[in-house]
Amino acid sequence: MASGNEPEKTAEAAKSASFKLANLDEKEKNRALRAIAAGLVKNRNKIIDANRDDVKKARKNGKGSAFIDRLMLDDERIDKMAESVLVVEALPDPVGEVIKTWRRPNALEISKVRVPLGVIAIIYESRPDVGVQAGALCLKSGNCVILRGGSDAGNSNIEIVKVMKQACENTDLSPECIQIIKDASHDTVKELLKMNRYIDLVMPRGGEALIRMVSENSRIPVIKHYKGVCHVYVDNESDGEMAHEICFNAKVQRPGVCNAMETMLVHKDIAGKFLKKMLSRFREAGVQIRGDERVRRVAGWVKPATMEDWDAEYLDLILSVRVVDSIDEAISHINEHGSKHSDAIVTFNYDKARKFLRLVDSAVVYVNASTRFTDGGEFGFGAEIGISTDKFHARGPMGLEELTSYKYMVYGNGQVRE
Amino acid sequence: MASGNEPEKTAEAAKSASFKLANLDEKEKNRALRAIAAGLVKNRNKIIDANRDDVKKARKNGKGSAFIDRLMLDDERIDKMAESVLVVEALPDPVGEVIKTWRRPNALEISKVRVPLGVIAIIYESRPDVGVQAGALCLKSGNCVILRGGSDAGNSNIEIVKVMKQACENTDLSPECIQIIKDASHDTVKELLKMNRYIDLVMPRGGEALIRMVSENSRIPVIKHYKGVCHVYVDNESDGEMAHEICFNAKVQRPGVCNAMETMLVHKDIAGKFLKKMLSRFREAGVQIRGDERVRRVAGWVKPATMEDWDAEYLDLILSVRVVDSIDEAISHINEHGSKHSDAIVTFNYDKARKFLRLVDSAVVYVNASTRFTDGGEFGFGAEIGISTDKFHARGPMGLEELTSYKYMVYGNGQVRE
Repeated sequence: MASGNEPEKTAEAAKSASFKLANLDEKEKNRALRAIAAGLVKNRNKIIDANRDDVKKARKNGKGSAFIDRLMLDDERIDKMAESVLVVEALPDPVGEVIKTWRRPNALEISKVRVPLGVIAIIYESRPDVGVQAGALCLKSGNCVILRGGSDAGNSNIEIVKVMKQACENTDLSPECIQIIKDASHDTVKELLKMNRYIDLVMPRGGEALIRMVSENSRIPVIKHYKGVCHVYVDNESDGEMAHEICFNAKVQRPGVCNAMETMLVHKDIAGKFLKKMLSRFREAGVQIRGDERVRRVAGWVKPATMEDWDAEYLDLILSVRVVDSIDEAISHINEHGSKHSDAIVTFNYDKARKFLRLVDSAVVYVNASTRFTDGGEFGFGAEIGISTDKFHARGPMGLEELTSYKYMVYGNGQVRE
Repeated sequence: MASGNEPEKTAEAAKSASFKLANLDEKEKNRALRAIAAGLVKNRNKIIDANRDDVKKARKNGKGSAFIDRLMLDDERIDKMAESVLVVEALPDPVGEVIKTWRRPNALEISKVRVPLGVIAIIYESRPDVGVQAGALCLKSGNCVILRGGSDAGNSNIEIVKVMKQACENTDLSPECIQIIKDASHDTVKELLKMNRYIDLVMPRGGEALIRMVSENSRIPVIKHYKGVCHVYVDNESDGEMAHEICFNAKVQRPGVCNAMETMLVHKDIAGKFLKKMLSRFREAGVQIRGDERVRRVAGWVKPATMEDWDAEYLDLILSVRVVDSIDEAISHINEHGSKHSDAIVTFNYDKARKFLRLVDSAVVYVNASTRFTDGGEFGFGAEIGISTDKFHARGPMGLEELTSYKYMVYGNGQVRE
């Protein structure tokens, strides 16, 4: 292998450090997190210098302005990164929480206690702040972290990890708790994904291609989030004004994120009246509408939707709109075309609300609220390492708790099995 | 592919049935489970006839008596299978449980609600009862199940699944909720393991080779249990009588199971006195002892332990014994050689108990009790689909709850994000 065995050495070092980290007290972990925040601020010039090289290289490689914007660090962004570490520091430590405890007829006492997962690998693209946030969340939850960022941010990431390692060294954490994979080749990543002996979880953060590559090559459990094709269904029995505000918010407030609405479904009985006003407001806000035949009967200016539109994650001011005959047709549409992320119904009918909540197979289902609330912060988790569209281990917004496992502690006084 | 696309069709049918099953009421699922139990009893002759063919073939293929014993069905075993289904029927339905619920400052109410995983594939060897038990647990927890048993039990499994499907058809469940993969080739299994679009979880149940094959080839999350190398550490500050009984129970009461003790660790200060009596009792019970140098100084008849012994899962009346200098040496030994299954300390020292519980990185850690209690029944789960030595999703004994995921139901009254 051209890459040598960097991934194996790195993963082994992280695993070995993880046993000690798992048993550090919150106080010790917090001290390290505060040192990381202070280190980022103190070393801001070194980080910004390294980042400048990355940005220069990216420009030379013809990367677009959105890419450069995600990559670029300045004073303000460094401050934000440091603040985000302090936000995590202030969250309660999930480790050691007794999830439940019970007593058996033979007087054995069993406690289910939260413990760290062990080692978490984060594979991300060109945003250097992702590594800092993810690293802070992993450390706070007692997990060692292996960061593998995109090669475009290589210099920035090396400098940032140097600061984080130094902060660990100056406090009670081993610098081995934070690892970076510097060799950014796909072969190296694929090797890393085989290290299930040392790594307990992989989280790919980025575009669909990255996530697919990771899922297909990993022997380690992966938590992923392919895309967010979110729906709002406006029922015939609904408050028109509320429906109006929710749909507008879900599409327009921040269209480039995964919890924004991509398809609006409207019951046929109210379609004429509701769409007339709604679609004009969207048009004024610069939203391009793609509709089915019945939508276009109400608003002739609407472009016809193709089959691809129903599955599309636009992440932009584009919306597909469909008129449905019933709530059942809406639910079927969502379960067929959605991405199991976030979907909402607007209705004042109790039975329909209940039906939608049960039958829509998504991580988060809403009645009478915007899909934009699917977010660790909005859920009250304090911070978020990602949103899972998987059902396994964790689903929906993931905070610190979702980075933990548990063990059973059993207290006896001489019990043997008969 | 020689196997055609049987796995894909089967998996697709199960996925499609899973949406309805996920929303059936407990009453309806219980009716189907009772029909399955009754069907097994009513069709016992057909099942036993089919099993007779399997047994005949296995004998002809030179299978040993332990193998034949696991494969063979008779009246009593059919009754037991039916009973095990009724035990599951009587358990509370985990689906719909509100795990927690909270209110946000903007008055959004968020509920975390238990839902089925979807479709679970069980890959097992020659014990036909495994399919029945696993099938019952999956159905009760609202999951469709795909059974792929060993080819040696092919006729038995086909007959059993026929009965289960008929019971579903006679009640409210779709017969598609239970699927069987008849083509038992490894290629077919490997194809099945790529169906992550349709299957949510794979549970291999059997020997290490099967489990390794499944883990290495699966794109679907796998919960597995490689082996049980369980330890009891007898501390110098311990009740000798209690230590004696716990060690004897952990090794001898049922040596062929995963939660039996395979290695006993004894503190040097009590080794002389404790081992003398303990080892004679083991010898009388027919337990072969393999010990380190210090053990052999106490009992010269003990065979020397090799490096392999510390990692061995004997599943038999064999025990490796080591004298350690301290609790720290015991903990290091366990974390290095154990299988993260079940480990116990016998001590009356409070600090050592606490240290052992925290630092031993196993699914179940005991103070003053036999490791033999690691079992869904003994934990009070009512039934068990397996024991996970993974940390991801579920750890330790797995009952119905561990076959579920969750979704967030969010109740609003017009909230939009600012």
